[in-house]
Parts: sequence; C-alpha cells; structure tokens
Amino acid sequence: MTLVEGAAGVHRISFNAGDRGGWRMAEIRPVTGPGLAPFARLEAFAPSELPGAIWCLSSVSSHQRYTTRDEAGMMAARPAPLGRPDSRRAALIPIRKSPAWWTLAQDERRAIFQESSGHITIGMDYVPGVARFLIHCRDTGGPFDFLTWFEFDESAEAAFDEMLTRLRATEEWRYVEREVDVRLVRAEG
Amino acid sequence: MTLVEGAAGVHRISFNAGDRGGWRMAEIRPVTGPGLAPFARLEAFAPSELPGAIWCLSSVSSHQRYTTRDEAGMMAARPAPLGRPDSRRAALIPIRKSPAWWTLAQDERRAIFQESSGHITIGMDYVPGVARFLIHCRDTGGPFDFLTWFEFDESAEAAFDEMLTRLRATEEWRYVEREVDVRLVRAEG
Repeated sequence: MTLVEGAAGVHRISFNAGDRGGWRMAEIRPVTGPGLAPFARLEAFAPSELPGAIWCLSSVSSHQRYTTRDEAGMMAARPAPLGRPDSRRAALIPIRKSPAWWTLAQDERRAIFQESSGHITIGMDYVPGVARFLIHCRDTGGPFDFLTWFEFDESAEAAFDEMLTRLRATEEWRYVEREVDVRLVRAEG
Repeated sequence: MTLVEGAAGVHRISFNAGDRGGWRMAEIRPVTGPGLAPFARLEAFAPSELPGAIWCLSSVSSHQRYTTRDEAGMMAARPAPLGRPDSRRAALIPIRKSPAWWTLAQDERRAIFQESSGHITIGMDYVPGVARFLIHCRDTGGPFDFLTWFEFDESAEAAFDEMLTRLRATEEWRYVEREVDVRLVRAEG
C-alpha cells in the first residue's frame, strides 16, 4: 500500500500542449538549449496530464523559497492577479539551472538571486502590468527546475520583453542552462 | 508524450516497510498524530517502491534549503557518514509541519529554524556519533514534509534520544503537526 494523500496547500498543476485549451501558440523561442515541440493550443493550470498531449509540463504549487517577509508584503501591496479579462497575452517560460547553482548553499543562492541580480526588484518594475505565477519542479521530475507563467495585456508585451532582457543579463542567469520562451494568445472561443 | 527525464543530482529514494530489507523494526513511536503500521523489515534507500510493501515513504534527494555556506563548511569538517559498520541502530523520523509554517516567508522559516531554535547547532552536538540524512518530500506527495534517516552505534542511542528531546522543545517544533519515530536494528543476515 502506498500513502498517497498530499500535503495541504500542495496542488498539482499541469500545462498541456496539444489541440485544446484556452491559449493558442504564437511562437516558441528556444533561448538556451533545445526548444519544445510546436502545438496548436495550451491548456494551462490543468489538474493532470491530458490524453493526447504533445507535451506536458507539470509540478505542484508549493511554498516560496527565497522571498522574505518584507518582499512578500511589498508584492502583496501591488497585486497583479492572473485571469484579468484584458490579459490576452501569456508566456510560459520553463527554465533549468545548472548543477553549479544547486550545489550553492541557500544564502549563496539568495544573494545571487536578489542582492546581486535584483530578481524581485526587476520583476516589481513591471507590476501590475505583468502577472506572474512561479512553480518549482526540480524535485517533481521532468527536464526543468522552474515553470513561470506570465499574463499581460497586448500593450505590455514590449515591457515584458524588456524585463526578460534585464533578467537574462544578471549574474543569476549565468546558471541557466536551458530556457524556452513559449508565447501565447488567448483563444477566441 | 510526457517528459520523464529527471534533473541531474535528483535521485528517487524510497523506504519500504515490509518483510525484507537490511533493517529490523524495533519500535514505532507515534510522537505527534497517528503512527505508522508495524512491519518486520525495512529496505532503506531503495530506488523505488517494492511490491508487497506495507508502506512506502518516498521522495527525491535534492538540494539544501536552509543551510548557509558557513554551516555547510562546518558540517563538512566533521563528517558523519552513513553505512559505518558500527552503526547498528537507526531511526526513520517522518515529519509534517503545519500550514502556518509553510505560509511563513523564507527568512522567517530560517530564523525559527536556526537563529531561534538552533536546529543545526543542536544536531552538530551529536556529530560524528549520529549520522543523518534529510529528504524533503512536501512537493513529491505523501503525508509528510520531511524524512530524516539517522544511524548510530548502540552506545549512542541515549545521546540520540537527548538530541530529539532538545529539538522537540524548540520553537520550530511548535509547527510540527505529525511526527513518527521508527526505531530499527540492523538485521543479522
């Protein structure tokens, strides 16, 4: 017998690429390393893998790993929720970091993430225009360590691209060994 | 198609309770909340669930979450390896922490873990007598958030009990909502 019940607050989240779902593929940009196979539609935030998916990236919604209480308070004060009617553009950016990153201690990773690279600071410059949801997936299998989902208004896409350019120039990004930028447009019915 | 390859450095580890394996059950102590079903033998560090297991607790070996570089260096300077011939006693202690713990920010959890509760400091008082291996499992499913495996010489069992008493008196342990202490003796052939 296996014990199967999960922890409170931990929910499975799957991104299914195939022929159904609320988002249409616009472009797949392989930023570092191999890309992902093209598809017609993406089902975001599904509770499980869908039959017939071309690919499925999946993990669980869990707790925050680097954010301090002050930073969490700052973010809570400027909410940027998912699902806004005007958010008709989205990006799914799966990332894998190198073994060198994962052998760093917690304080070293934190220092690179924010004190050196300003990851949170950069992200906050694009709030509330860009909504963001981060999923950790290193421990749950698959080829990536993080899946980040972004939603924004069409008019914010240039600002979103600027944010990515700034992040990719940081010390933190030297540890990124695979990154794919999947752009999406909300499907009309 | 599902992407199944795992990240480098991430390996599945299972503890199978049943009728085989290198460790014989000595006692199951339900410390907080329900215990676990008794068994004859435990297979520790198996790569997967074994058929016929009474229960299986499983996760992946991953990266450290709270340890700083200085602390990691201090621990590396006083190694306490698993598998020493004299280590004929072991304990498997699965723990679940409360939702209140997991909604704390990283700096708050770290401050309770070490600055207030001295978790690492207490543990280091029992090195090298007590060898320890920690596995995170909140994100990988099952009823626990951590599995900790300890090995020690029979003569160190009283010191090991003292260590647990000290840890359970800390602020950190107020967030423990389930804990089981499974004691084991190395099976003679």
